[in-house]
Amino acid sequence: MTMSTIGLTAALLTTAAYVPQAYKTIKTRSTRDLSIVTFSMLFLGTILWFVYGLYIHDTPIILANGVTATLSGIIFFLKIGSFKKRRRR
Amino acid sequence: MTMSTIGLTAALLTTAAYVPQAYKTIKTRSTRDLSIVTFSMLFLGTILWFVYGLYIHDTPIILANGVTATLSGIIFFLKIGSFKKRRRR
Repeated sequence: MTMSTIGLTAALLTTAAYVPQAYKTIKTRSTRDLSIVTFSMLFLGTILWFVYGLYIHDTPIILANGVTATLSGIIFFLKIGSFKKRRRR
Repeated sequence: MTMSTIGLTAALLTTAAYVPQAYKTIKTRSTRDLSIVTFSMLFLGTILWFVYGLYIHDTPIILANGVTATLSGIIFFLKIGSFKKRRRR
């Protein structure tokens, strides 16, 4: 495996990693074991990476963080939703 | 906020994000809502980023991914552990 293949595989893995978590959370709506702080930081962090990518015109940064911001945002808002529901009970 | 501050804040947020999740998972040992596929991909992906960082001699890539590989590795092995326990019951 060449070094650029290793870099590309790394980027693909860390970008696609949130797909199964988002799928699981959407399906089960169960968020008890997820840290709200982690997903708020990931959501905000990847939005800032996205903005940074737009500024330096870097397509891989824009694409990877656009995807991760969307997925971590879905998980974050499902977690927020379960918080609100618990409080209403 | 300048653009390099935005990039640095983004990097800090996405790197430190796994600290509260690892802390929560170590404390509760509860991993039901965590996707094993997500954390195996994050673990492997950040190890590959780390190797890539060593190769291109990039300190920020080495540090950020060394931290994330350790944290996602802890969460991944706690998830694996709970899988094995459930099977033994």
